[in-house]
Amino acid sequence: MATATIPGYTYGTADVTPSPLSEEDLEKLKKAVLFDEEDEKYLRMAGEVLADQIEDVLDVWYGFVASHPHLVYYFTDGKGNASNEYLGAVRKRFGQWILDTCNRPYDKAWLDYAHEIGLRHHRSKKNQTDRVDSVPNINYRYLVAFIYPITATIKPFLAKKGHSPEEVDKMHQAWFKSVVMQVALWSYPYVKEGDF
Amino acid sequence: MATATIPGYTYGTADVTPSPLSEEDLEKLKKAVLFDEEDEKYLRMAGEVLADQIEDVLDVWYGFVASHPHLVYYFTDGKGNASNEYLGAVRKRFGQWILDTCNRPYDKAWLDYAHEIGLRHHRSKKNQTDRVDSVPNINYRYLVAFIYPITATIKPFLAKKGHSPEEVDKMHQAWFKSVVMQVALWSYPYVKEGDF
Repeated sequence: MATATIPGYTYGTADVTPSPLSEEDLEKLKKAVLFDEEDEKYLRMAGEVLADQIEDVLDVWYGFVASHPHLVYYFTDGKGNASNEYLGAVRKRFGQWILDTCNRPYDKAWLDYAHEIGLRHHRSKKNQTDRVDSVPNINYRYLVAFIYPITATIKPFLAKKGHSPEEVDKMHQAWFKSVVMQVALWSYPYVKEGDF
Repeated sequence: MATATIPGYTYGTADVTPSPLSEEDLEKLKKAVLFDEEDEKYLRMAGEVLADQIEDVLDVWYGFVASHPHLVYYFTDGKGNASNEYLGAVRKRFGQWILDTCNRPYDKAWLDYAHEIGLRHHRSKKNQTDRVDSVPNINYRYLVAFIYPITATIKPFLAKKGHSPEEVDKMHQAWFKSVVMQVALWSYPYVKEGDF
């Protein structure tokens, strides 16, 4: 992973805001989405399958966002002007996020970076990483909503390398669990004190 | 639907707190999860398929919750004692929720009741409907987490009435979209003012 070349990608560094959650909290969350060692195995398989398809996946996701003004809005100045600089900077990290979802151990560093990703969607830190002048907050409802397209659209890519339907389904279920878990973690900065 | 016999089920009545969202907000949310008329059609089909399997579905979901102390916790007094009265009262409405998810038009009344369901998970209104003395709030992270089990476990039930694999998948995708959309709506009372 040529991560050193991605501006604003700070995984595992001191620039990441530590998660307020414990590793025990993470274990409980894994149980709630039925995530276990088999899912880790199939996420690694998905990582191999997706490695040379990252740009194609991002084309689908960016095409989806671009086709809906109320979604591309979060990359604009609020007056209808989307920032290509901002879209491009996020895209590099989004591609790396696919690989991290598949390949990283879900440990303290991963938990911390999930928290950092949440902060960067929320008004706490949105726009700061890329030093852009965009709308101040991504409305929370769309973080949850994106669980659907991010999960549904990945399946055809998982099926492109000749794996059996059962293997494709297991990779897909592991991906689905991980996305749900990560959106739960990204919610922290949005949720009222004590309610998370 | 013998809804009159379900205590605390107030769909379409003046007892429901109106949603702060507009029907235009709902249309935008539908677009974000790719929900369209075809999904409505397949949800109706799912409603027919699930109608006589509701108790079996609830057995799976309740079995899952009961097997995890950190999940059944939300039905307890906080000291390890789960309330069977509370579990039973929620169960009747949970069964009706399956039918409503499949059969109701997603209009203003549906939007309002989704908001009401969110309030009843949150400390705003938890325990009030059933007049129980339980822990004050369902931690938000588990509302998102439950998207996975509630979606994954429904599929075998959708496949039990002889529909083609393609029909089962379309029913399942429509269900998945709806659950994601509803969890987004249920989040409202948890999210900080202006961030939803």
